Amino acid sequence: MSLISELMNALQILPGVGAKTAQRLTFHLLQKDKLGGKHLAETLLKSIELINECESCRTLTEHPMCKICANPNRDVSKVCVVETPADIIQIEQATDFKGKYFVLHGKLSPIDGIGPAELKMNKLVELLIDCDELIIATGSTVEGETTAQFLSHLAEKGGIKATRLAHGVPLGGDLEYIDNSTLAHAFASRTQL
Amino acid sequence: MSLISELMNALQILPGVGAKTAQRLTFHLLQKDKLGGKHLAETLLKSIELINECESCRTLTEHPMCKICANPNRDVSKVCVVETPADIIQIEQATDFKGKYFVLHGKLSPIDGIGPAELKMNKLVELLIDCDELIIATGSTVEGETTAQFLSHLAEKGGIKATRLAHGVPLGGDLEYIDNSTLAHAFASRTQL
Repeated sequence: MSLISELMNALQILPGVGAKTAQRLTFHLLQKDKLGGKHLAETLLKSIELINECESCRTLTEHPMCKICANPNRDVSKVCVVETPADIIQIEQATDFKGKYFVLHGKLSPIDGIGPAELKMNKLVELLIDCDELIIATGSTVEGETTAQFLSHLAEKGGIKATRLAHGVPLGGDLEYIDNSTLAHAFASRTQL
Repeated sequence: MSLISELMNALQILPGVGAKTAQRLTFHLLQKDKLGGKHLAETLLKSIELINECESCRTLTEHPMCKICANPNRDVSKVCVVETPADIIQIEQATDFKGKYFVLHGKLSPIDGIGPAELKMNKLVELLIDCDELIIATGSTVEGETTAQFLSHLAEKGGIKATRLAHGVPLGGDLEYIDNSTLAHAFASRTQL
């Protein structure tokens, strides 16, 4: 196999990249942006080698502890549990939350053999020592809700308040395009103006 | 800047990859497919280092001469001129053409300062020594047509037949969705059944 074909195949590990896109990317990297391509390859190698889970919150970082966990000004009394490191970026960008995080790297799914141990919830328990509110920000899927249930029991046992992100109509959303369950939820949880 | 942010930025050199996609790719590479990511980075580095233009046809190859040019069984009497190395892959897949190729890596565009010298057409002239048909497969854009005109004059001067890919209705194409110029061309070039 020629080196070009090998590169085209290697690029197809990227999600959403098929044969045609891989070909386009290959010629872009080899003809239009060799310098950028070299930097990309080197950064990728370095990242794969150095980036690991933060020893406290399990997000991805090249240091033993991530920037948020290492920051003494973050409020240890609030812990927000998310499914993925990407969720932390989202929440940091959208909100002014100043507490700590914990990344599950998944959600409870007994049918796939993923229980509390697989999600390393014992590490979460360590974070809960100084905590008075556990904000459960898992997704609103069946597994996400199951995980939220489990976490709220865990919080209850430790005498900690558990909260869940609100469900409802997305901002800028037309009622016409909202699914029935979301609308029913938003209607039931209506707030006084 | 953290290494993760650096990787996200590095990925954005890829065409069609913005901040959100770069984030998705980053977490995919670091969480789901470290092995594939490592292979991708290494192949990319190797490719950027080793792949250069074929000294005869100017396509991209890791050898001094590409597989097609090095093959003594290819018909030197037919030379097909294309704009990019990707076009060769397309023609090889779609047709049973057994001649040689020449890659322009662009098209004539005097307004951008791209003349025959920039496209290294002197290298094409070397290929034309044993050639009796020059197949001009540049695109059907204004620059592509200008380039085709120039190449056909070049062939004429050397006493070589110049041919151009046929224009017309794409196979499987409904007349309703074909633009007027293509339809007019197809109508004028109608063939007897």
